[in-house]
Amino acid sequence: MSGQTGGGRAVRRFALNQWTTRRWSVAEAVDGCVRHGVEAIGLWRQNVAEQGLEETVKLVGDAGLRVSSLCRGGFLTSGDALDDNRRAIDEAAALKAACLVMVVGGLPGVVPGEPLGTISRDLAGARERVAEALAALAPYAGERGVRLALEPLHPMYCADRAVLSTLGQALDLAEPYPVEQVGVVVDTFHVWWDPQVFRQIARAGERIASYQVCDFLSPLPADVLLGRGVMGDGVIDFAPLTAAVAEAGYTGDIEVEIFNADVWAADPDEVLPRIMTRFDELVGG
Amino acid sequence: MSGQTGGGRAVRRFALNQWTTRRWSVAEAVDGCVRHGVEAIGLWRQNVAEQGLEETVKLVGDAGLRVSSLCRGGFLTSGDALDDNRRAIDEAAALKAACLVMVVGGLPGVVPGEPLGTISRDLAGARERVAEALAALAPYAGERGVRLALEPLHPMYCADRAVLSTLGQALDLAEPYPVEQVGVVVDTFHVWWDPQVFRQIARAGERIASYQVCDFLSPLPADVLLGRGVMGDGVIDFAPLTAAVAEAGYTGDIEVEIFNADVWAADPDEVLPRIMTRFDELVGG
Repeated sequence: MSGQTGGGRAVRRFALNQWTTRRWSVAEAVDGCVRHGVEAIGLWRQNVAEQGLEETVKLVGDAGLRVSSLCRGGFLTSGDALDDNRRAIDEAAALKAACLVMVVGGLPGVVPGEPLGTISRDLAGARERVAEALAALAPYAGERGVRLALEPLHPMYCADRAVLSTLGQALDLAEPYPVEQVGVVVDTFHVWWDPQVFRQIARAGERIASYQVCDFLSPLPADVLLGRGVMGDGVIDFAPLTAAVAEAGYTGDIEVEIFNADVWAADPDEVLPRIMTRFDELVGG
Repeated sequence: MSGQTGGGRAVRRFALNQWTTRRWSVAEAVDGCVRHGVEAIGLWRQNVAEQGLEETVKLVGDAGLRVSSLCRGGFLTSGDALDDNRRAIDEAAALKAACLVMVVGGLPGVVPGEPLGTISRDLAGARERVAEALAALAPYAGERGVRLALEPLHPMYCADRAVLSTLGQALDLAEPYPVEQVGVVVDTFHVWWDPQVFRQIARAGERIASYQVCDFLSPLPADVLLGRGVMGDGVIDFAPLTAAVAEAGYTGDIEVEIFNADVWAADPDEVLPRIMTRFDELVGG
């Protein structure tokens, strides 16, 4: 690993979520991973579509990368999303992704960033629709060997992105299904504040399909979607969360996923070693 | 009530939190309440200090207003806040406030709106300090007939304003104390997203010391502190929350507390009837 960043034990579990280096195409991100000694990558569907699914399969295969996740299925609360989610499952199967991340969607009619038009305020009803859609999708995923990973999002996104707000709620939703069919994402940004987080990580056990890390910035920027920071730049204490996830039995990749205007503006070849160093120092694994 | 807004049963429980009409002094807000047929007011300590405590006691007494709450004690996580909280308790006693709202404070060193300097990331430790401070303050409040009302704040404020993030957590904290000494605030803005909110409201029962309402705006404004909207302008369905609070046994005032740049820019004499009408239509009670 000489000439590469890090090289310790931890970095072998480091996975680059490609939206962290958002300006890179799939091909560029794969190349960047190889150059910097990264062994796993989290891909996004729209980027895969731009590169082409078959070509992406070949690129990651030739590079010997693990696909730590495919982002994302979901948005199950508005309209008929099942067909699109079945396509997402097929893509995850082709990519041999460790899981398909599910961002379940907000209140029907609420569009992120847009003024409210005609919406539903029936939060309980929206949550029920997620459960119904999951019942339709989980067997389909199971047949293709794909694991759905329910991602609770920070409660500040409850209206516009995900009515799934806590790890406990995600585990309740996952419970009826085999662990290899429906798991959960533990993303430090979304769960760090939760008074029950350690209890729920322990409860999750084998349900943990993905561990994602980034920091929570304070103050939040004007667009709260971009409130994710490089580890160490915010308020999260990563060590106890990493320890809890390990104790629960998770041994998979640890994905760094940062939506941040400054990170996106920087040279990805500068960003990647910086976040790998911070990962080694603060996240471990 | 002719010539006044509303006049239905609901409006008799309507309380104006004075920061909703922030440009009004205590004297002006008391006068406004009388003119608009409002029977109860939630006061803020800094405004009371400007008016003078004794004069405020006289003003609300002469106007026949109930003081639905005094905002606020708390900020228990940084430094020694006990003396200031004892003064807040004394003020609440003098005002015969139904409760003293406690905003417990964020991570030590985090200043709202300021870049991070030297901070503590020990969230569990900060929560422990809140419990310790409460143990010191609750008996003092009890001796003076003041009820401390622990307010869980939306998790997006966990770092900078309140490490108390859910109603369940507030009830755990309140449990060792008599209900008349330590209660909780149910504020729709802070709790609407919580998958456990109805279970926890039922659990709260007599612990509910204050029911506060305002809407949750989507998208959030650049300063998330000002994400509170007039009822009906956001995503919250108030009726089930009001019903749950009533079923839990709460019969006190219902305070409208809105931090919002547009509301603050408007003429308070226009704002008050507008929010009273929305209150009648959407909140009830």
